[in-house]
This record gives sequence, structure tokens and C-alpha cells, in this order.
Amino acid sequence: MSHNTFGHLFRVTTWGESHGPALGCVVDGCPPGIALTEADIQPWLDRRRPGQGKFVTQRQEPDAVRILSGVFQDAATDARSGGQVTTGTPISMIIDNIDQRSRDYSEIATAFRPGHADYAYFAKYGVRDYRGGGRQSARETAARVAAGAIARKILAGVTIRGAVVQIGPYAVDPAKIDFSVTGDNPFWAPDPDIVPIWEDHLEKIRKSGSSTGAIVAVEATGVPAGWGAPIYGKLDAELAAACMSINAAKGVEIGAGFAAAALSGEENADEMRMGADGPLFLSNSAGGILGGISTGQPVTARVAFKPTSSILSLRRSVNEAGEEIDLRTKGRHDPCVGLRAVPVVEAMTACVLADAWLRHRAQTGGGAHAPGAI
Amino acid sequence: MSHNTFGHLFRVTTWGESHGPALGCVVDGCPPGIALTEADIQPWLDRRRPGQGKFVTQRQEPDAVRILSGVFQDAATDARSGGQVTTGTPISMIIDNIDQRSRDYSEIATAFRPGHADYAYFAKYGVRDYRGGGRQSARETAARVAAGAIARKILAGVTIRGAVVQIGPYAVDPAKIDFSVTGDNPFWAPDPDIVPIWEDHLEKIRKSGSSTGAIVAVEATGVPAGWGAPIYGKLDAELAAACMSINAAKGVEIGAGFAAAALSGEENADEMRMGADGPLFLSNSAGGILGGISTGQPVTARVAFKPTSSILSLRRSVNEAGEEIDLRTKGRHDPCVGLRAVPVVEAMTACVLADAWLRHRAQTGGGAHAPGAI
Amino acid sequence: MSHNTFGHLFRVTTWGESHGPALGCVVDGCPPGIALTEADIQPWLDRRRPGQGKFVTQRQEPDAVRILSGVFQDAATDARSGGQVTTGTPISMIIDNIDQRSRDYSEIATAFRPGHADYAYFAKYGVRDYRGGGRQSARETAARVAAGAIARKILAGVTIRGAVVQIGPYAVDPAKIDFSVTGDNPFWAPDPDIVPIWEDHLEKIRKSGSSTGAIVAVEATGVPAGWGAPIYGKLDAELAAACMSINAAKGVEIGAGFAAAALSGEENADEMRMGADGPLFLSNSAGGILGGISTGQPVTARVAFKPTSSILSLRRSVNEAGEEIDLRTKGRHDPCVGLRAVPVVEAMTACVLADAWLRHRAQTGGGAHAPGAI
Amino acid sequence: MSHNTFGHLFRVTTWGESHGPALGCVVDGCPPGIALTEADIQPWLDRRRPGQGKFVTQRQEPDAVRILSGVFQDAATDARSGGQVTTGTPISMIIDNIDQRSRDYSEIATAFRPGHADYAYFAKYGVRDYRGGGRQSARETAARVAAGAIARKILAGVTIRGAVVQIGPYAVDPAKIDFSVTGDNPFWAPDPDIVPIWEDHLEKIRKSGSSTGAIVAVEATGVPAGWGAPIYGKLDAELAAACMSINAAKGVEIGAGFAAAALSGEENADEMRMGADGPLFLSNSAGGILGGISTGQPVTARVAFKPTSSILSLRRSVNEAGEEIDLRTKGRHDPCVGLRAVPVVEAMTACVLADAWLRHRAQTGGGAHAPGAI
Repeated sequence: MSHNTFGHLFRVTTWGESHGPALGCVVDGCPPGIALTEADIQPWLDRRRPGQGKFVTQRQEPDAVRILSGVFQDAATDARSGGQVTTGTPISMIIDNIDQRSRDYSEIATAFRPGHADYAYFAKYGVRDYRGGGRQSARETAARVAAGAIARKILAGVTIRGAVVQIGPYAVDPAKIDFSVTGDNPFWAPDPDIVPIWEDHLEKIRKSGSSTGAIVAVEATGVPAGWGAPIYGKLDAELAAACMSINAAKGVEIGAGFAAAALSGEENADEMRMGADGPLFLSNSAGGILGGISTGQPVTARVAFKPTSSILSLRRSVNEAGEEIDLRTKGRHDPCVGLRAVPVVEAMTACVLADAWLRHRAQTGGGAHAPGAI
Repeated sequence: MSHNTFGHLFRVTTWGESHGPALGCVVDGCPPGIALTEADIQPWLDRRRPGQGKFVTQRQEPDAVRILSGVFQDAATDARSGGQVTTGTPISMIIDNIDQRSRDYSEIATAFRPGHADYAYFAKYGVRDYRGGGRQSARETAARVAAGAIARKILAGVTIRGAVVQIGPYAVDPAKIDFSVTGDNPFWAPDPDIVPIWEDHLEKIRKSGSSTGAIVAVEATGVPAGWGAPIYGKLDAELAAACMSINAAKGVEIGAGFAAAALSGEENADEMRMGADGPLFLSNSAGGILGGISTGQPVTARVAFKPTSSILSLRRSVNEAGEEIDLRTKGRHDPCVGLRAVPVVEAMTACVLADAWLRHRAQTGGGAHAPGAI
Repeated sequence: MSHNTFGHLFRVTTWGESHGPALGCVVDGCPPGIALTEADIQPWLDRRRPGQGKFVTQRQEPDAVRILSGVFQDAATDARSGGQVTTGTPISMIIDNIDQRSRDYSEIATAFRPGHADYAYFAKYGVRDYRGGGRQSARETAARVAAGAIARKILAGVTIRGAVVQIGPYAVDPAKIDFSVTGDNPFWAPDPDIVPIWEDHLEKIRKSGSSTGAIVAVEATGVPAGWGAPIYGKLDAELAAACMSINAAKGVEIGAGFAAAALSGEENADEMRMGADGPLFLSNSAGGILGGISTGQPVTARVAFKPTSSILSLRRSVNEAGEEIDLRTKGRHDPCVGLRAVPVVEAMTACVLADAWLRHRAQTGGGAHAPGAI
Repeated sequence: MSHNTFGHLFRVTTWGESHGPALGCVVDGCPPGIALTEADIQPWLDRRRPGQGKFVTQRQEPDAVRILSGVFQDAATDARSGGQVTTGTPISMIIDNIDQRSRDYSEIATAFRPGHADYAYFAKYGVRDYRGGGRQSARETAARVAAGAIARKILAGVTIRGAVVQIGPYAVDPAKIDFSVTGDNPFWAPDPDIVPIWEDHLEKIRKSGSSTGAIVAVEATGVPAGWGAPIYGKLDAELAAACMSINAAKGVEIGAGFAAAALSGEENADEMRMGADGPLFLSNSAGGILGGISTGQPVTARVAFKPTSSILSLRRSVNEAGEEIDLRTKGRHDPCVGLRAVPVVEAMTACVLADAWLRHRAQTGGGAHAPGAI
């Protein structure tokens, strides 16, 4: 991971500020010959887009993605390629910023909003694009989602699904999690029973101008055994970095995660039996990863998001001049940034897995050694 | 992060298996002119060494480190350098494996121990050094601790201290955490009151041949504002990857971490006032990092460790031939691997911070912009 | 260097095909606070632009660059920043492809032009954007020149100048090289006496539909001692990779280069005396680099470019169907691609030096130890 | 390439100084299951070893390599692995420094030898291990040769052979180059006719205490089409960096190289016909690489080495105190360092190709698209 690049072989470089002319990313290392048009990417961006409900920011952006390079429709050889495909060269994608509402930013131009990165950027760089958060804006995550859409196309056979599993103090019962129902409600809830509880909580939060944290869970099924690598290339280490790099993320756990601290070895270590397609684990405390390498079980992770820092209460802060001030963050905002994080967590998981797959193929040819097959 | 290398400018490459002739690491990118001898490194290794109590593995290793390159005592110019110093070239360190107890590994040579990485390595590579865990052994962490000792020398003014804050279900009261007392007990406990509780719990665990998980906290004070970088070079993302790469780690959180999910924006966002040396935060939910960049507050993180997978109970598993077996993991082992993780978490934190410092110096010259100073 | 990224800290990722909608690059790692607008970049692109004479390709492109991110004009703090400056976040630049002449590419859609990368791309990827060379087009070098313009702004005190020193068999007399006169003729010639000879040679080449090779020299003055690093981070190794990555480059040499093979140690090793500002070398066979580290002398390199492969003669080749064909490459082309390489070699040198400067600052703080100063 | 690491997937990190206790390297990313013992590596080191003739340095080193990690002889599954094989984990190799002749280095401890990197290291680091050149010693190349031996084992079907093709002003006739005879003489000469000429030249050089430059050629046959990648991952760019990083290298060229500058397009562009196994090039000006991607032709390169800087003549220089001095470099030395470079150039070529192969396999699966096969 470089500053604005992540991945080793499937490499994503993102750029852009909230109120600049556009944002985008360059995806390098994508295998050639993969069918890819904007239509493969736009639906994932549409899922992420703000402005889709009263509990998410009112900013209205079409977030229309354009592919500027790295694909080709080969008229002369169309029968072979069957339409527009990736060429193996870098794929540049751009999303114009349309709704750069011309509001007055002068109040926060030199003030540091509590909980925001304003002061940290100032301390580091001495200059910052304060409009809408600049580079620290959650708009940057649109580029991640676009890259993730390409990663998904590489990951044939892998299904990646996210869900919100906690909002504020209200957590979904783990036993009732069903990733297939998250699309049936505006909260990405994997259990319909939690929906009215969250709705009530969020309505209170919204009315009071406050905000609330959340936890997002993600599950990748169909990941074969063998992806990842020892020590610093561990699949869970890569996943942890990728998810922790998302705006407002404050924690990442794999499988049983922090709960594993309270378990005994008997409770935690997943026993094995032989299944029809190889070893079968009788539980999944490991979250599908042992020694940093996938085991063939579903890869599971959870990411904690802090409450949005933009709230209506008057807060104590300081400004660039070193003066103590009281500050209220006005304007549109999300009461629960975690609600918008689901597509982003999914996208980062997809990118990490696509990268792991290419690295695994590089070192070993790509297969997995099956017990009994030797 | 490559497979066995981490860091961007302060780069650590580790190598070695549990029962090979030696293990070690190469530290590249260290600044020149830093006083460094084995005496700067050995004490940190001694803190990590197993065999120091009945609650850690009985393996007896002196873990004596030798520096093979990258330092020089310049007789001709000794007055200037004042003894042996780093030269800016790669520092190779080696630790011989002495206690490679010649036990019989035939039982596990082709069996996959539940909770271990045996099957994952087999699936990936088709071959694995099964003796003592091979590359997945916790012995690898000695190399990290050696590298961390060098990182600490780079980080003048920064103090990094770890503690065990939970063993099994027994957590230290956060209000009572005092990092200065961890050396007064064999459990790295930051609160003496928890010691008898943990002692009792571990004694039961040890007698039953079971194991238990734990949580390690780490705090780095003296980190100036401005370290880290946007998006994928975020200080917390780097820290998450570094800590999740430690054996048995299953979760990482920064500041308030997962607890932030249950908070409101008012509770979570740290307010600011001016202090004598710059902005002062009135709380530290952020764990000293905002937008991936340090704020000058203590950098705080917590890492969850699963219980050791080696336990005496008979467990269901499979072997390389694809046969279902019942397996009991005999031999020395740690009932609580988290107990040995404190020096490792500290070392990884040191390495990440040293790298962040060098990267910050590269891009900006190394200073921080102070409010009011312009 | 990744596939489409180069540099370690000053990192440039380029993208785009000759006949796609646009091409561009993302520059990551640029220090903050550097004054930067399109006006700092456009002049360098204008120098590179084809269509400026009868000896370069007739493609007419304005090559107008737009900066999409990473800069900010801080109205609230304008007095401090003094106009638009870099913010330390990634700088995305885009150049639209205007003159995508709608010619018929069907003839070369499945044919492999001799000397071109057509077959190599096909063998690797199985698909290629054949229009105008696709990714292998020299248009990609516009992105390098844009990045180089930013690199120059970082390199205060360093002057980088290139020249054509040989076209076909006609070489400039080394004793007569004067980099200050290259702008006085359309051939970047550092010696006016060679101009009529080259003009005559190129006219013959152009009329016959042939092409010719060339050698470009570059000199960077003002580089302080201490940039670069041992072994694989050697300044000359980085420079060699950067220059060899330019289209049509077939050789790179530093200082005396290949001629050094014929020299004796006495002739080659540059003697030293003390000058007013530090050691003074009495010659510069080393090209300003010893052990991979700059010495304070001018950094000098030469890059060989092969003749353009697009020529009017009928040539033997094969096509995708595996048939033997005879092929003539029609359309606009450069008789001497080396003529357009001067700004590109300069840009790559600038990028390598900017990266070396940041790396040097990271490891050492950025200074140089002066003899006698200790 | 990092400072002391090169390669992307087949990664080599070297360490060690001339007069430290040892030197070595860590090879990460090697595929698993490859038969590997010290006996696979030692012969290549023996070819590189000094002390084998009167024209190379008199230092006597056995250069015995030991493998410390990354291999395993799997007794329980020996029938499967058939002996000691790589495990996919990092391979650490060490070579002890035996002949650290205890001579007096005080004269050069603070003096900068002309043509050496003494001053450059001092300027950068302010401290340097001056004994025998420290990190800048050609002894470091032993680690490269050891890594190259592993790379060769990965490159089944590829043959890499080097030769000296010029010593001082005496060049081998290109038409007479036969790589199979280089072992028949002590000069790696690919043409026996040049041997007496070189012998005479070197004898004069040796007697006068002078030194001479040389050019080394390398050829890799059996490289399939498709290795390498566009723009900054070009196979020739990687090769250029790898070869330029060798001590004393001052130039690298691919195929026709600098001579291409004098050619016309007709002379340079290699025509194609269909052969039994795919396209056949009728010449090889390209050196087997087009657009940075291999074509299936032999990959050919040439590397220029400057004359050794250690000569017996009195030379003008300066010292750390800033005083002007006259200096004579005494002690053992090579009159022609190029003579020892052949195994090193071969090794670097092997490492670059192994890395390119793994990268190619990662992105594409590893095959090549054959004309007519679709």
C-alpha cells in the first residue's frame, strides 16, 4: 500500500477531492479478456450513492462512471472477444462531481471540526482543501466501489455480501443473520426484525442533529483454499488494512474476532471432517483464514464505524490561528455513515481477494492441493 | 507489504522456521549514524522469550541475536561517531535455533491440527515444514521484536508500551489501566487487582490442557501530529495490517474501536482546546489518529488474540490422505499466546511508526504545522 | 516500478491509449505547498507535441492538460499560500485525445507490424487495441512529460537539459556540445554545425519513407551529493530503468558509458580537488554518480533510440491467423522518433531525481556531509 | 526496486559488507516444490569466486553458501517430494566472510579514493565501512549469484549464458560469438581467437598496476513470448535496472542497442515468417523484446563495465577533513572487474526473468496466444 494506491498485482490508485471537478481511479494489473463496460460498474455505484433516503446525506450525485482506458471492442476480432473486454492495460475510471453546491465554506476554512481530519491534514501539509472534506470526504469511496466492481469480475465463483449488523447499541442477533435479505430494507439489515428498531433510533438521531456508529459485516463465499500468504502477506492482514482505510473505520475483526479473546481453545479451534469437495470445517471461528491463508470456508469480517463527526451540537475546538472557538457543523450530512459503508466494505474485500488470487496464481500456478488427491 | 516484508521505507524482511538452523530479519532503510549494538536489541528479545514462567511454553531458547551487517565502529573517526553506529546499509540480524528438541513429529507430519494453519499451508503449497509449526511458528515473532528494537531507536521521544487487558472473559477496568505497572507481574497486567483473577483462570486452563484468548492494548505517546497519510497509507490502516499479521491475531481496533459503533457523535468526536504545545484534545476516542494522520494525542490500539490451538483434548480432523482422524496436540505449548504477544505488538507498533516518520519526513521535511504559528 | 507506475515516493501512474478518449497520469507523493497550475505544465507538453515540423508526425493534438485533483487555491488563506498550491494529495492530470483521425485500421487489426509490439501484445494478452498503437503509442509519453513538469518544481536548484547528439550515423562532436543552443534549431541539436547535416539526412529519410535512429543526451546540474542509494536503489539503476521504459529506447549509459570499457583506470577514475563548495572532480567519467549515489557533479546519461518501425517499404510479417503476409505501414509517422524523445528523457530524469531527493530526505534528513565540516 | 531489494514477486534482498562476519540474501516468493539444496547453488558461486587466476583479485574465499530457511526434506512424504524442496517461504542464504585479511585500513579510513564510492557514501551517510569497500564491495555480488541460482531452477527451459565480448579496446567479432566456448578459457571469451590478444593486454595492465574496462554480453534462449509488461514494467527496463545495479556497470543495451541509432528502419525492424513453433523473426535487432514484452526470440543484452578504480598510480584526491591528498590504492585488486561480472550479469538476468515469469502467470495464467491457434 502506497499513500493512494493499494494492492500488489491488482492495484488501485484513487484520486480526487469532494469539490474538485472529478474523482476517479486507475486499476492496473487486471487480467485481459474480461468483458467490461460501464454497465458492469454503474450498478455497484448506484448502491453506494448518497441521496437515497432520509437517513443518508442529501447530496445528489448521479455518480456516472466513464471508462477512459484499458478496454477495447475489437471489431476485427469480435467473434473471438464477444464485445468490449479488458486489454490488460490500466483501466482509468472517472466520475464527475456534479453537485458541488456553491455554499459558503468560509466558516470552516480555518477552523478544525472536532472528529474530522481537518487539524491532522493541516498539521501535516499546512494546506488543505476544506470544501466538503476535500480528500478526506467519503466521496473518495466511490472510486473504491468502481474498482471493486472490476475485482468482482475477476473473482468468478466468489460471492461477496455485506450487511449492517449493528447501529448504535442495537445489534442484530448473529443467529438470525441472512445476507440474502439485506436488499429488502433501506438499512442493509440482514434480519427484518431489527428494521423498526433501527428506524426508530435513526429518526431520533436525525431529529436531534446527532449521529450514531455502526458495524458492518461482510462474507465472501466460494473462496478456494490457498489464497493469502505467510506473515506480512496474510489475507487477514491485507483485509484489515483495506477495511481500516475506509473513512470512519475504527476496528476490523476476522471470524470470531474480539470475541475469541474470551473463548477456550476447544470453543475456538474449528474441527474438520471430510466433505464431498474437500475438508469441511464444523464451525468457522477462524473466519475462513488460518495462518493468513484461506481454508475454503467463507471469509468473514466485521468493521466498526464511528458516528459521523458532523453534528449540530455546538462543540469546542480551535482554528488555524490557534484561537479557541465553538463550532457547529452545518449542512447536509449522514446521521450514520456506516449505512453507506456496506458497498465500500464489499468493494475492498473484492479488491483484496482479487489481488490475493493473482498473487496465489503467480507463486503456485493457482490450484489448491486437495487431501487424498496425491 | 510483501509476503515476508513489511514497511515502505523502514523495511523489515523476516525469514526462518521454528526448527531450521536459525531465523532472522533484514532491516533496510534505517537512517545512518544511530548508535546500535546487540545490547540495544537483546533486552527486548529477552522480554519476549518463552520459558519464563509456568504459563508460557517450556521451550528454552536463549534467543541471542547477532548483527551481521549494517553497523560499523569507525576507529579512525570514533570521536565523531562515538561507538558502533548504523551505516544506512541493510542490517541483518540472526538468532540461532538452539532448542530444536528432537521429538517425534511423525504423528502430525501428515495430519492437520484443528485451528492451526497446517491444512491452509498444505492446500497452498503442497509441502510444509510441520516441525514445530515451521514458518507459522510464533518463533517468527522474535525477528519482529529485533526489528522493533531498531525502530525504537529511530523514534526518539516516542514511548511505546503494551499491556494485556483481557484474558479469557476477565477484562481490566479501563479506568484502572496504568501502563507503568505491567512489569510488576508475569501477565503484563496494567492493574494489579486483576492479577489473582487471571492467575486462577490460567491455572485452571493449564491443568485442563486447554487454552484461552486475550486482548493486548498498546499506547504510543510522544507521536507528533502529522504522521501517516491519506487513504491507503493511513496510519491506522498500516497499524491494523501490522498487528493482524501477528500469529493468532483476530481483531484490531484503534481508539474507541468497536465500542464507537454504539456511541453518538457527541460522545465520540474529541473536542479541542489550545494547550501549551498546540491543540489539546479533551478525550481520545480517535486513538490519536484522524483521517489516517496522527494528531499528537497518544496513539492507542487493541489487538485480540485467539486461544492457542494446541490443546490436549481429542479433536476431530483430517489428514493429507483425506482420512478423518481424531487428534490430540501434545508437547509444550502456551495456554495463552496473548501473554507473549505484548512485546510483539509493541514491536510492530514501533516499526509502523518508524516507517511513518520516515515517510512523513520524505514528503514534508518532517515538521508539523502548528496553529497560530503562521 | 509496477507495470504502469514508477517511482517510490514520487510515484507516477500513467494510463491511456492512443485512440481512447483521453490519457493521463496520477502523481502521488508530491510535497505540499508547491505552486502549481496548468501553466506550469503546458509549456513542457508543448515542447513534446508532434506536428511541429515536417520531420515529426503530422498528428495535430493540442495536448491541453487539465489538473483534476491535488491542488487548491485557498481563498481564506491566500496570503499564506500565494495562489494555487499542491496539497500533498494525488494530482490527477488528463489530456483529451482530440485528433483520433477516423481512418481505417482494418488492415493492421489482425496483422503484426514488424518492429512494433503488435505480436508481443497479442501473445501476452490475446487482445490489443491496434488503433494507433494503443497503449504502445508514443502518445503515452505526454503523461510522462506532465509528471516531469511537477518533478521539476520539486527540484529547486536542479537544471535538466536534453539534446539530440546523434541522428543516424551523424554524431555531434562531444567537445562542441552546448546544451544552451538546443532551442535554436528544430532538432534539439547542441551544436549548430550539425544542423545542415541532419537536415539533409532526415530529408532523404523522409522522402524515401524510411526512418532513422538517434541518441539523446541529458544533463542534470545542481544535483547535490548524496542522492541515490546502494545496490538496487542506485541512482543510475533507477535512471536506466526510467529511460529504457521510453518507447523505442534500446540502450542507456551513464557518464562515459560504453566508452569506459576501452579506458584504463587512470583515464576513467575522476580525480578530486577541493573547490569552494566542496570536492571538485577534475573530470566526469562517472556521470556524477559513484556507487549509485550522486557526487555533486552533473548527472549525465545518454539514451539510444531505434528508428521508427513504421516505414513505407513492403515488409514480411505474419498475422493473427498465422498466415505469412507482406505489409506496408501507411499513415503519418515520425522519420526519427528520437527527435521527440528529448522532452521525455528530460521528464524521466526529473521524476527519478525528485524521487531520489524524497528518498534521501526520508533516510537522512536531506543534507549532505561536507568534507572538513565535521 | 527498494534500496537493497529487487524484484516484484521473485524478490531478492541482499545484505552484508566486505569485511563483516558474513553476507547473504533472502529470496522471497519462490514457488514451492522445487528441488533445492546447496549443491544447486554452490557451482554458480564457484564460477564467480575470485582467486582463480592471476587476472582476478587474490582474495581467497571459499564462498560456501548455507541455506537457512525455506526448504524442507519431508521424511513423512518423501516419496512425493523426492528430496529437499522449496516450501514457498523465504529462502535465507548466508556466506561467511573468511578471508578478512587483517590489513591496515587507516590510510583510506578518511580518504576518498578516486573512482570509488567513498566520497558519495560519506556525503550521504556521514559514516562508512571503509574496510574493503564495505557495502560497495564486489563481494555483494555473491549474494546475487546465489539468488540467480534459484531463479534458474524456476526457469525450466530457459538457458542463460554470458560472455566477455570486449576488454579494453579489443572487441570480439560479433559474427564469431559462440557462447558454448566461454568455459574453455579464463576470460569467458566466446571466441578463442581473442584470447591471446586479451591475455597480452591484461598482462600489460597487471604489470603496470593499471586496470581496464570490459563489455559483457548475455543471451537467454527459451524465453516464451509474452513475458514483461507495458510501460514501466517493461522487460528491458527491468533488465536495464538489474544490470546497471551491478558494481562498475556504466551502460546497458538491448539487442542492437546503441548501434540502432545509426540504422534505418529497414535495417532495424525484424521481419517475421511463420516457423514450426510460431512466428519466426528473420533477425534480432530487438534483442527478443518489443514494447517491453518478450517475443520468443533470444533475449540479448550487453553491459559495459568501467575499469577498476583501484590502481597503483598516485592520484589526486581529498579526505574527510577537506584536505587535498595524493593517494595510491594498494592491496589486492582486479585489473578487469568485468571478468568477474559474467556470472553476475547471468544471475541478474535470471532473477529478472523469473520475476517476469511469475508476474506474467499472475496476470494471464501463464500461457502465450499463438497465431493461428484461435
